[in-house]
Amino acid sequence: MFAEILTIGDELLTGHTVDSNSAFIGQRLTERGYWVRRKTTVGDDVGEIKAAVGEILARKPEVLVISGGLGPTHDDVTMPAVAEALGRKLVLCSPCLEDIKAFYERLYREGYIDDPSLNEGRRKMAYLPEGAEPLENTEGAAPGAYIEHEGVKIFVLPGMPREMKAMLERGVLPRLGERRFIQKKLLAEITDESKLAPVLSEAVERFKVRIHSSPKGFGKYIGVIIFAESEEEAEKAKEFMEAKGVRFEEP
Amino acid sequence: MFAEILTIGDELLTGHTVDSNSAFIGQRLTERGYWVRRKTTVGDDVGEIKAAVGEILARKPEVLVISGGLGPTHDDVTMPAVAEALGRKLVLCSPCLEDIKAFYERLYREGYIDDPSLNEGRRKMAYLPEGAEPLENTEGAAPGAYIEHEGVKIFVLPGMPREMKAMLERGVLPRLGERRFIQKKLLAEITDESKLAPVLSEAVERFKVRIHSSPKGFGKYIGVIIFAESEEEAEKAKEFMEAKGVRFEEP
Repeated sequence: MFAEILTIGDELLTGHTVDSNSAFIGQRLTERGYWVRRKTTVGDDVGEIKAAVGEILARKPEVLVISGGLGPTHDDVTMPAVAEALGRKLVLCSPCLEDIKAFYERLYREGYIDDPSLNEGRRKMAYLPEGAEPLENTEGAAPGAYIEHEGVKIFVLPGMPREMKAMLERGVLPRLGERRFIQKKLLAEITDESKLAPVLSEAVERFKVRIHSSPKGFGKYIGVIIFAESEEEAEKAKEFMEAKGVRFEEP
Repeated sequence: MFAEILTIGDELLTGHTVDSNSAFIGQRLTERGYWVRRKTTVGDDVGEIKAAVGEILARKPEVLVISGGLGPTHDDVTMPAVAEALGRKLVLCSPCLEDIKAFYERLYREGYIDDPSLNEGRRKMAYLPEGAEPLENTEGAAPGAYIEHEGVKIFVLPGMPREMKAMLERGVLPRLGERRFIQKKLLAEITDESKLAPVLSEAVERFKVRIHSSPKGFGKYIGVIIFAESEEEAEKAKEFMEAKGVRFEEP
């Protein structure tokens, strides 16, 4: 069960913005038991987005979460690019247009904007790839989209973190089923790292767990994360490794 | 002149770590006049890294900066994966091994580690793809690598931010020449966003500038960044846009 993440925005490529969105999405998908296999970031460019989506779909992930480029400005081109990549038309989502209208009317009443009318930029946010299910944006104007395409669950979310997070929790995770992974974080004290690797590999084979490891400090400790479907299974893997001579501390 | 960035680490995919490295690298490359076209992140897996490197090289960037997975632990597999992707052997860099030895001896003297000897994990950091120039790691153990491969300048850097940044400044940027871009950040006040797009496009055609724009707040302002080789050229582009009716504020 693997997933990919595609984040979109020139500001991510120029380093003006650190891509914390993809970390948040990765965390939530991992908790649900998905192996996030790759993250890709491209700019606000139809050709680049289309190419990236095509390459990702060719790898046949179960889930693809896309974030960014849904707003009203001229460089928000994610929906048309995704539609092109899927060979689908962009079609008007009438209820979306009503929501967008209501959103700007509220901003106008509250004094944030001078003009509530649906100009071209605001209107275009109501166009989704044909066959997409709209995902409600409780925090902003642009709706997201959920598209099942040749066995891949594709979710298209806004790039503003507050909007993305709310839509991920309300519109994406409920569509991924209830499976939850537990994560057990440990520090392994090591004197010879080369002895740890075979023990980790053996634990992964014997138990229903996945194990990530990463060095902490200067080679004296290894951070170990055990992913498992239950606390019991994680504990069994831990005890197995301890029996093989690995000393763990809780971090 | 375009560049790509590849960051490597399971912890980036599971969201345990936010990938600030690629933002830093993107910023520095952008300042040097490179268009960072894509960022990719894969896990600590030889097959995944090899595949990603192959795909990036097929797009023929001028520069590829890779970060992560150079350490002593069993899941640090970036160097062998890069070597495989390039069809090169891994060969021992003897001066690197001397540096690594001296590094651990210093850590031992300073009381950070119990054993300074060159075990398998520490020794493997001295192996670089054949033909690579080692990049000194002033902040840690693992050397980086600079490889010219079929017209692509490939830099392989550590993932620890302090080590990566020092190596980028000392080993990468000096090899990219002296060209510097200035970045002028502005806020454009807009009443109708659809009128801004053609003005931006015209400015890009007339002047030696690149312009990024992104919405701020609820559609009342657009953040505009003008990239140019000189302050004068950026100013000319700004004045041109003002003459076309765009009102700017310094942010």
